[in-house]
Amino acid sequence: MEKLNTYLESNKQRFLDELFGLIRIPSISSISDHKPDMLKAAEYWKNTILKSGADKAEIIPTAGNPVVYGEKIIDPSKPTVLVYGHYDVMPVDPLDLWKSPPFEPEIRDGKIYARGADDDKGQAFMHAKAFESMVSTGTLPCNVKFMIEGEEEIGSPNLEKFCSDHKEMLKADIILVSDTGMIAQDIPSITVGLRGLAYLEVEVTGPNRDLHSGLFGGAVANPINILSKMIASLTDENHHITIPGFYDKVLELTAEERAEMAKAPFNLEEYKKAIDIAEVCGEKGYSTMERTGIRPTLDVCGIWGGYTGEGAKTVLPSKATAKISMRLVPHQDHEEISKLFEEHFLKIAPPYVKVKVTNLHGGQGYVSPTDTKAYQAASKAYETTFGKKPVPVRSGGSIPIISTFERVLGIKSILMGFGLESDAIHSPNENYPLFNFYKGIETIPYFYKYYCE
Amino acid sequence: MEKLNTYLESNKQRFLDELFGLIRIPSISSISDHKPDMLKAAEYWKNTILKSGADKAEIIPTAGNPVVYGEKIIDPSKPTVLVYGHYDVMPVDPLDLWKSPPFEPEIRDGKIYARGADDDKGQAFMHAKAFESMVSTGTLPCNVKFMIEGEEEIGSPNLEKFCSDHKEMLKADIILVSDTGMIAQDIPSITVGLRGLAYLEVEVTGPNRDLHSGLFGGAVANPINILSKMIASLTDENHHITIPGFYDKVLELTAEERAEMAKAPFNLEEYKKAIDIAEVCGEKGYSTMERTGIRPTLDVCGIWGGYTGEGAKTVLPSKATAKISMRLVPHQDHEEISKLFEEHFLKIAPPYVKVKVTNLHGGQGYVSPTDTKAYQAASKAYETTFGKKPVPVRSGGSIPIISTFERVLGIKSILMGFGLESDAIHSPNENYPLFNFYKGIETIPYFYKYYCE
Repeated sequence: MEKLNTYLESNKQRFLDELFGLIRIPSISSISDHKPDMLKAAEYWKNTILKSGADKAEIIPTAGNPVVYGEKIIDPSKPTVLVYGHYDVMPVDPLDLWKSPPFEPEIRDGKIYARGADDDKGQAFMHAKAFESMVSTGTLPCNVKFMIEGEEEIGSPNLEKFCSDHKEMLKADIILVSDTGMIAQDIPSITVGLRGLAYLEVEVTGPNRDLHSGLFGGAVANPINILSKMIASLTDENHHITIPGFYDKVLELTAEERAEMAKAPFNLEEYKKAIDIAEVCGEKGYSTMERTGIRPTLDVCGIWGGYTGEGAKTVLPSKATAKISMRLVPHQDHEEISKLFEEHFLKIAPPYVKVKVTNLHGGQGYVSPTDTKAYQAASKAYETTFGKKPVPVRSGGSIPIISTFERVLGIKSILMGFGLESDAIHSPNENYPLFNFYKGIETIPYFYKYYCE
Repeated sequence: MEKLNTYLESNKQRFLDELFGLIRIPSISSISDHKPDMLKAAEYWKNTILKSGADKAEIIPTAGNPVVYGEKIIDPSKPTVLVYGHYDVMPVDPLDLWKSPPFEPEIRDGKIYARGADDDKGQAFMHAKAFESMVSTGTLPCNVKFMIEGEEEIGSPNLEKFCSDHKEMLKADIILVSDTGMIAQDIPSITVGLRGLAYLEVEVTGPNRDLHSGLFGGAVANPINILSKMIASLTDENHHITIPGFYDKVLELTAEERAEMAKAPFNLEEYKKAIDIAEVCGEKGYSTMERTGIRPTLDVCGIWGGYTGEGAKTVLPSKATAKISMRLVPHQDHEEISKLFEEHFLKIAPPYVKVKVTNLHGGQGYVSPTDTKAYQAASKAYETTFGKKPVPVRSGGSIPIISTFERVLGIKSILMGFGLESDAIHSPNENYPLFNFYKGIETIPYFYKYYCE
């Protein structure tokens, strides 16, 4: 593998420049104005895959943003690795909290600062460059396919159909994904569990127009007060979710499994300090790691209503709206949970308001076994480059499409994430350390090596 | 009074054109960008008062927006009426709900549609034109002073000092104000009670930055969920406010007084239909009119936090903010109530968030006796032009400065409002019927006549 290291060393700056070119395209999938940028980003990926040494690469349309597909088949009798990633990114507001423009990557303190620097432009790009390194040095041991989509951040609404439409093309032995994190730069880890997601929007309407809060206040229901009460009632004093049936299918872990989980390194004081909170807060009876790893949640991701400008405008508003996400754990079905939520939310609506519930998106959770050849190969790869065996962890995040791959394509995924908690993905000042970027490019070829041995 | 009617008839269009000139100045006091418009509106009023026949008019600076003062002293031994009004208006958002631009007045169905058409440009302007009519026809029976301020919609923060600084100049026997409403075009009424107001902003901060709701959700307090719970707890299941001491000083009405109030015409079905609600909602044990007339309230006027854009962005936000107004009834002191609110709100804050409370503005309530010469003159004036004796009503609205006038200047106010509930003041499509505008100009001189008899 000496050749690979030399190749990486002599191409470091170019790899970074190429990533910056991708980052500069503001491919925000949730904002329709950015449609043209989605196509630009797809085009960029197609060229990247081709230049990296693929036999072919193409942009395949879907009902939404297109999927970039590419492949290099060196020998049909050898194993095939399917690399999955996404070229779309999250919105950037609040923009005023960014220290440098989100789509103008800047290196500060050894980190790339930009939207998508980690999630998932930086991480997916490592696979293209690891692939290029193996091709260029004649060390690629198997076939490789790339599937880079443009709708991950909005729940991959068209990827399931894409998979069933292209089952033959996507045939592979394992799916390799870098869209998760690791515990720390000196504590490598591999994500073996992901939470599912149900995401809904609720709108509460009181009077048919904004009213004078003096003339009507006290006699007409205020939709913000009502929405607050409805949201408040969704969790009890122990932070349990009160929706009937919500926990029915939750996979409960054994005391042994929980004891095993508790061995993962975790420092509560550092955790609180990093985000400046005096106390953590979560479901009674569970540790912080369990609360994000094995328990479902209900979080209001956004709320708005009435006057939100400067000063003291009095108004009894007509409407109040909230976006509510529930992270789900294995065996909870996102469609069933969305339905339970909707039924319950409509049921608790008092007679003096109208309530509308809209299901915005959802996805299933995922659990990966650790006794497979693929997991062992990934584990050995990290051990080789980090000098430490990686810890298997359950992440609180969601990549709904991972469970879809298993269901539709029948292929398991390995989540070789190189991100850090401090990368601030989805937040202002998202960043990705150069160390992690290059370490990823160095580690990935070892996976191929051990997987094909 | 024949001469007055003739004068009004032959100047109707000009009166309207002049009002439109004032309306076209977007004098929104709560938005600092509109500072230059405040001066333009003050200038416009100064010229209006001068052209209408005043001896003098001037723009007097304050620490905020200036006050326009004007006077006509015909005989120092005669009574003096001080007209109060305001040239500032409310913000106009949400702008997309307006059928015509808010600062481009448009007549539709016999109504002037514009921000300020009623509150308070249209209503205050009636006094200038009634004054002009009396001067021009030689029927002005007493001295008149004008005090038109530019900060009513933000709680008149500088008018109390202005009053104490200019006590001598403002000396008068009665203050005349048109900044309230009447029951209907065929049911005149005079406001004899106003609610006070306490208005605060609360900010709940969880983590020091927006977090990934998957990686942190369930383990870190979500400030929107927490704010919802805190707001929800401010009222109980009977819609009583739970802040300790909140009701301690509330003036309770006798059964007799309540029976008297219940005689005012009120149609619950029409009330609900007008604002399209299935049920009214308010404090247990009180009627709809009592809930707005004699009982205090707690309304969230605005709330925001997290992602409020298009689509399904998952985030565990750092902050959530709400603007909360409490309408107060006689004997509740707004400063005391603001303090009780702040103490209580900080006390109920759980340890996993930081809470900041900012007092944005406040004012005392007001009650006007009906057995005075001034009230009787106003009553007779309405009776003359509407053919019906007006009903004395307690409004749920607040004009905090009215109680300040009494305290600082020692002068009572008469609230001769000509607005209608359907005028949508503070809302999109604010309007003011031409009927009411001209009826006001017709009615006001009768007040002067009867008051000076």
